[in-house]
This record gives sequence, structure tokens and C-alpha cells, in this order.
Amino acid sequence: MEVITSSTNAQIKHIKELQSKARARRESGSFVAEGRKLVEEACGLGLAQQIYLSESYAREEDRAGNLAGCLEAKEAKEAGLVRVVADTVFKTISDTQTPQGILAVVRQPVYSIEELLERETVRLLLLEDIRDPGNLGTMLRTAEGAGIDAVLMSQGTVDYYNPKVVRATMGSIFRVPFAYAADFLKLLQTLKQKGIHLFAAHLAGKACYDEITYPSRAAVLIGNEANGLTDEAAGEADCYVKIPMAGKVESLNAAVAAALLMYQMRRKG
Amino acid sequence: MEVITSSTNAQIKHIKELQSKARARRESGSFVAEGRKLVEEACGLGLAQQIYLSESYAREEDRAGNLAGCLEAKEAKEAGLVRVVADTVFKTISDTQTPQGILAVVRQPVYSIEELLERETVRLLLLEDIRDPGNLGTMLRTAEGAGIDAVLMSQGTVDYYNPKVVRATMGSIFRVPFAYAADFLKLLQTLKQKGIHLFAAHLAGKACYDEITYPSRAAVLIGNEANGLTDEAAGEADCYVKIPMAGKVESLNAAVAAALLMYQMRRKG
Repeated sequence: MEVITSSTNAQIKHIKELQSKARARRESGSFVAEGRKLVEEACGLGLAQQIYLSESYAREEDRAGNLAGCLEAKEAKEAGLVRVVADTVFKTISDTQTPQGILAVVRQPVYSIEELLERETVRLLLLEDIRDPGNLGTMLRTAEGAGIDAVLMSQGTVDYYNPKVVRATMGSIFRVPFAYAADFLKLLQTLKQKGIHLFAAHLAGKACYDEITYPSRAAVLIGNEANGLTDEAAGEADCYVKIPMAGKVESLNAAVAAALLMYQMRRKG
Repeated sequence: MEVITSSTNAQIKHIKELQSKARARRESGSFVAEGRKLVEEACGLGLAQQIYLSESYAREEDRAGNLAGCLEAKEAKEAGLVRVVADTVFKTISDTQTPQGILAVVRQPVYSIEELLERETVRLLLLEDIRDPGNLGTMLRTAEGAGIDAVLMSQGTVDYYNPKVVRATMGSIFRVPFAYAADFLKLLQTLKQKGIHLFAAHLAGKACYDEITYPSRAAVLIGNEANGLTDEAAGEADCYVKIPMAGKVESLNAAVAAALLMYQMRRKG
């Protein structure tokens, strides 16, 4: 199999752009998934457009006699779905410090959120301007665990396909429907019109998050790490909820606050 | 006030070592706290040994007529507690990409854990080999919020005074007693002998974390991000608890799992 040895190769340059630029991801409608588990998941969903292996990864896998499950199909190899890259070049396209040696360029999934909002039971996570990729990825992962139906975000939220987000989701990126709202406030209003109850974690909350009975159609609203929710978004909430805090803690990490609320909503639904 | 303009200045070199090397922190019994809030807190506790301001930060503060609260005491200035550093040099001693312009070398607090274990009500967080500084910092912050009395860690846990941990704690590092156990398994046995009930988040758990009545002397046991608890540590637990997970999620982020358990323990205590 031919090995890509030049870091100025057009494909290599494209991957680097996908790793570093939200715009490149948006324009191409694709992103990079790294690591065997994520690549296999992308293949299973038919979303993998091209797979890249480092030379040493490819060699090891060959020796073990089994390439990643998704690659076992002979057609994949013949169709040129898999490319091998020199280790030194692979390092330049990986977003991790110690690359596993496998990544894929993956088509962005498209979700139909509208249908989902008509269900009898709806659980949503609504995020306004979350900035930290690790936080966003962790929230996704927790959302799936807590049985959240979809994650809807403001435009000011960090790019979902940022490699650090993708990694932190541990695969949930392929399993939890999500969308960015062109107009976040309007989204909140629409949800309310549809009878979805909006709960906001807010310092002004009187009811404790664990003393509330969450209705079957409900959403948790979480704001920016440093500033919390904007007044406008908070103003749309049906109910402020408080997470009690001992000591001198002024707030919890956004992903932690989201987790407590999502898991609570899950139970009482 | 004299300005440090050389990055080969002995103090500057010392700070860089404290930022990058756990060993330097251990040997000197100190660490670096960055940002106004953390520095003020360290000053309030009498732990700040030396404060460094970037030139532009010092200028702004002077103009505003109020240096950080802790610096208002004339003695502090006269005693040479405060040093001003050229902006370019300050960048080299900061662990953040956009430094606030204020940091302090801080004495490591010393906690007496033994006394605390004799209380009628004890809530502990026990961490085995947590590797991610952001996770550890977030757990500390959540622990304070959830009213945890102390955090006890295995030797394999990332250094508490790592700048990324310090930052993620948002000040809780000064408020939650903690210690590393020379022998983690022995610590678990000692706690059990003292009648402290050990709850471990574990895939083999049968009881849901939110269906358990936590006794007044209890501890939550959380394992490494990738591998969970070692069999040896898990074997010491009095009770395995399960966090229910929907979808295909295999585990939650360690800081999220810890948060759910700590907040649950808090409520039913």
C-alpha cells in the first residue's frame, strides 16, 4: 500500500485544516475523529469518508491479522478508503500528544430536531455560549448517559466538531442529536410555545434542583462558564433552580452543574 | 519599585520550576497561585510568600488607587512581598495563555486529617490515580460545594499543586483539606476500621447511587479515568453503587461521576 510521506500532501493539509479551523469543518461538512473506537463508530454509521493509519499502526494491525472491524470489509481497502501515513507525518495531523495512529475524516451527521420535539416525553439540554471544548464534550457524554434526547446550543458555543470536543464525548457525538440555533432566544420561546418547561440553573433559584418534579417535557438551560446565562436567556426560563453549595463555592463547573440537573430530571420524569 | 526584566533572574527561574516540576514544588513546600482571586485568598490565609505583578498590571492597579486587597497593608510592600516583572518576562512565568498579570508563590497548607476522621459526621472523597489535572481540580471544587470534609488520594494521583489543578479548583484548594496516602489500600482499611463506610462507583454495582441511604460516616471512592478502580481498591469497598446510563455510554467522566455521588451523599446524610 502506498504511504504518504510528505506533510505538504494535499490530503494531509486538508486534515490539518479540519483539525484547526471551524470554518474548514463547516465548509466541508466534515470533521476528524481520532482513535480506534471513534473511527469504528463512524464506519458503522457509514459516516467515514477516509481513514488514515500511521505506518506503525498499520503494521501492528496487519501482524495481529485484524485491522479495525470496519476495515475488515475487503471493499473498503479496494475502494481506497484507507490510506497509510508515515509516522512522522501522522504526528502532524493528530490532535493528541501520543497519537494512537488511527483517524478518519468523517461526514457531519444531520439530525432532524423538529420531529423529536413532538414526542410525549422530551428531555433537552440547552447550552448558551459554552466556551471550553472539554466541558462541551463532557456534557454530551453525560447527556447521553442521562437519556437526554437532544442538545441545542447558541451560536456562541464552541464548535461541536473541535477535536477536543470530539475526544471528550467518547463517542456520544455520534449518538446524541444536536443543533446550533440561529437565534437562541427565539429557540427558547419556540420550545416554551411547544409546552416544554425550561429549567435554568441560576443563583437566584429558590427551589433546590432535587426538590422539583420535572414534567415529561422539560429542558435544562446552562450558561457560559465565566458569566452564567445572559439576562435575556435567563428571562425566558420557566423556573430557576438552585444547586446548594457549601463552603465558599460561588458556582460549580458548568459540566458538573449540567450533570446534576440532567440526572435529576431523568429520575423524576 | 524595581522591575525584574531578565528571565534568567533567579526568582523567575524558581517560579518556572514551580510551574513545571512537581519535584520542585515538593522540595520547596510551595506552589504558584495565579490570578487576583487566588492570590488574595492566599494572602488572607497568610500563605503568600512572594507576589509578582506584571508591569502593566501594577500600573493599572496604581492608577485605580487600589492594589489587591492583600497588598494594601503597607508592611507588605515594605517587607518586599511584592515584585514587579516586565510584561514579557511575566508571560514566561504564567501558566495561562492570557495572563491576568498577578501570581504568588504560596506555601503549601498542611492539614491534620486524623482529627477530622473522628467527627460524628464525616464525608470523604477518595481518589485513586486520577491523572487529568482539570478533573482533579473540578472534583475539589465540587467537593467543597457538596460539603465534603477532606479529599484523600493515592500516590498515583496527579500533583495537587499542578498549575492546571490549582486553576480548576477556583480557590477550593485553599479550603478543602486533602492528603496523599503513602499506602492507599492501607488507608482504605484504616477508614473501614474507623467505621467509615466506603462506597465505590463501579460497573458491578447493583444499588443505584440515588437509592442508597448514606450513613453519617461515609466516603466515595473514584478510580482512574481510563481504567476505573484497581481490583484491590474496589475489593475494599463496603458497597458498589451504580450510576444508571442510557444509550451506549460505558462510563461517565470521573469528575461527573464523583459529583453525582458526592451530591447524593450530601442530601441523604
